[in-house]
Amino acid sequence: MQIYLDNSATTVVAKEVIDAILPYFSGDFGNAQSVHAFGQRAKAAVEDARRQVAALINAAPAEIVFVSGGTEADNLAIRGIAEAHQAKGRHLITTKIEHPAVLAMCEALEQRGFRVTYLPVARNGIVNLQDVRDAISDETILISVMHANNETGTLQPLEEIAEIVNERRAQGHLHLHLHSDAVQSIGKIPVDVKKLGVDLLSLSGHKIHAPKGVGALFIKKGTRLEKLFYGGHHERDKRPGTENVPGIVGLGKACELVRLNFTKRTSRIRELRDYLEQRITAAIFTVQINGDVERRVPNISNLSFVGLDGESLLIALDLRGIAVSTGSACASGSLEPSHVLTAMGLSRQEVRGSLRISLSAYNTRQEIDCAVDALREIAGRLREMLPTDEVEASSVFSS
Amino acid sequence: MQIYLDNSATTVVAKEVIDAILPYFSGDFGNAQSVHAFGQRAKAAVEDARRQVAALINAAPAEIVFVSGGTEADNLAIRGIAEAHQAKGRHLITTKIEHPAVLAMCEALEQRGFRVTYLPVARNGIVNLQDVRDAISDETILISVMHANNETGTLQPLEEIAEIVNERRAQGHLHLHLHSDAVQSIGKIPVDVKKLGVDLLSLSGHKIHAPKGVGALFIKKGTRLEKLFYGGHHERDKRPGTENVPGIVGLGKACELVRLNFTKRTSRIRELRDYLEQRITAAIFTVQINGDVERRVPNISNLSFVGLDGESLLIALDLRGIAVSTGSACASGSLEPSHVLTAMGLSRQEVRGSLRISLSAYNTRQEIDCAVDALREIAGRLREMLPTDEVEASSVFSS
Repeated sequence: MQIYLDNSATTVVAKEVIDAILPYFSGDFGNAQSVHAFGQRAKAAVEDARRQVAALINAAPAEIVFVSGGTEADNLAIRGIAEAHQAKGRHLITTKIEHPAVLAMCEALEQRGFRVTYLPVARNGIVNLQDVRDAISDETILISVMHANNETGTLQPLEEIAEIVNERRAQGHLHLHLHSDAVQSIGKIPVDVKKLGVDLLSLSGHKIHAPKGVGALFIKKGTRLEKLFYGGHHERDKRPGTENVPGIVGLGKACELVRLNFTKRTSRIRELRDYLEQRITAAIFTVQINGDVERRVPNISNLSFVGLDGESLLIALDLRGIAVSTGSACASGSLEPSHVLTAMGLSRQEVRGSLRISLSAYNTRQEIDCAVDALREIAGRLREMLPTDEVEASSVFSS
Repeated sequence: MQIYLDNSATTVVAKEVIDAILPYFSGDFGNAQSVHAFGQRAKAAVEDARRQVAALINAAPAEIVFVSGGTEADNLAIRGIAEAHQAKGRHLITTKIEHPAVLAMCEALEQRGFRVTYLPVARNGIVNLQDVRDAISDETILISVMHANNETGTLQPLEEIAEIVNERRAQGHLHLHLHSDAVQSIGKIPVDVKKLGVDLLSLSGHKIHAPKGVGALFIKKGTRLEKLFYGGHHERDKRPGTENVPGIVGLGKACELVRLNFTKRTSRIRELRDYLEQRITAAIFTVQINGDVERRVPNISNLSFVGLDGESLLIALDLRGIAVSTGSACASGSLEPSHVLTAMGLSRQEVRGSLRISLSAYNTRQEIDCAVDALREIAGRLREMLPTDEVEASSVFSS
């Protein structure tokens, strides 16, 4: 038995996406820059995909730049704005709970003489708008705030932050930009770049049933940014390198599938997630849900099994063929406690006992049942192995 | 009819490679950073591929870093060395005939206060070793010289340049590094990083029947370089971002296929190329072969049809389903004359009349016959359309 409940780490490639990709491996394998028919067919496929991605997020196709993934998209946005606008100011604002692609890039910029403000979040995982307002100075060139957090799924008030940015711009602060890492929100909640009011937005293929190795950055028309690397004049001179035609075609197809099946899929996932949480909280006393339970994407459940060790739960579940995670895949193996949960003010015990269960449209109610039954049994057994003073009164089971 | 003779621009993905990739789209689609079984299977596949790439170029697996393609590999090598060693010196040496990924990166570094020497080449397309020697100063931190040129296939004397580097190092010039863009030589001639004496070497998947969107940089053990972008600690902390598992598996498989079939494939390609050149020069008077006819990869034929326009030949061939190119795909559409042929001292007319025909193991003698017959006919017709003073004495045909 194999049950995959780690869809925030990566997802299976959809059958329709594989079917869309395959012709670009063998028949239409041309280089999209080539003048001949092989090249022109590849170019047409890339432009079709650009329209599909743009349509999903209400952008113009010319505002979509294809890159190798979410990390490159985040880096291109942040380093790109920093290098292009440093004459106007060398201050950036982000949050303490961003993905490593944002945090590590910001830290690298600090090494290069930029100043970065890392905003705190409340216990529910959400930034305070007054903190955003207070952090902005005339030297601020970029605010980068993720849309949905990758560990908890909590949503940030992007529209309200965009309003603050617009107020500043109305006062002449024209070099202030807003970027959002939307890797975890795309496909889960509506992402409309105009409604969100962002200048830059990152997305990744492999979180929405497209292949790994492809992503995109939305760059609002008129936004000036420096390139991350240099070479040919691909992607309107914003990202050099032979276009990853099959990957791009796959990303386009995945975006189309998201757009066409949006309501059906997301309500199904939300139902499954609610069912999961209902069953777990009913079965296990000492579990808590981390992050805001309302303002979050419908597919992630971040739970703390207080008094237990999330890593042990993960491994025990894995032995039964059930895949979940503690924190993000990108931070796995680092042994450091989750920077996200820590920033939310959770206790060491709550962080240690945390587990992320993340769903996709391919999961079933039966899989949830299996996982909850396994969790209940494993939690009980791990609890028995604890020294008595760590065990809470009576039992861990609600029933 | 479809005849693809533009294999230096990109290649068809081999059937064996597609078969190797497919399981990583659906069954084993895990994130290689995940702790659970899905993740561990993905990780094992990535490490198998790393061994396959390393085996082809006689490197250690730990010396291979997977990236998104040749452009990123070149940029990581050059910017990575420049940023890590700038305290020792801010001078780089390269050649006038490099790929845009190297040239544009070097130009970007010039904007950032580095000094770059662009070495000239002789009429045969090869750099002069004395020029290399003379260009080195104590401030030189990197020499980047391509292995095979992407337009002509001409090989540079890398081993001799490595000897010069080693002489300098023996004199205490320890911060001098040697990088080579081997994107066009891999799979065509033996590439042994130890024999070549390089510290860094770039390769790309889609030139050797692996998919687009994946490449690798060989980084000799002990070589210190800065990252190109920042995020998680993937690829031994040298390249962040979720590993492109299917792409990496495909690159590994393609490298294995190259290694196992090397002599058979390359002698077959060389035979086809020689046959092509023999037939063309026999059929058309005014054709010349550009670049050194001995020191070159076996699959590229760069020809000048003097008095004709290469772009017109390309388009006329394309209308008959035959794909060739003028210059590189990466520079296509730029309308600028080839920087490679110009650096070799070819006349404007010779550059304008140039055409690149590049073969793979999948081409056949029948395809070559078709292409030569078409070229002969097209060249004759274009010639008829020229004003009489541009037409050479008598005819363009040898027979």
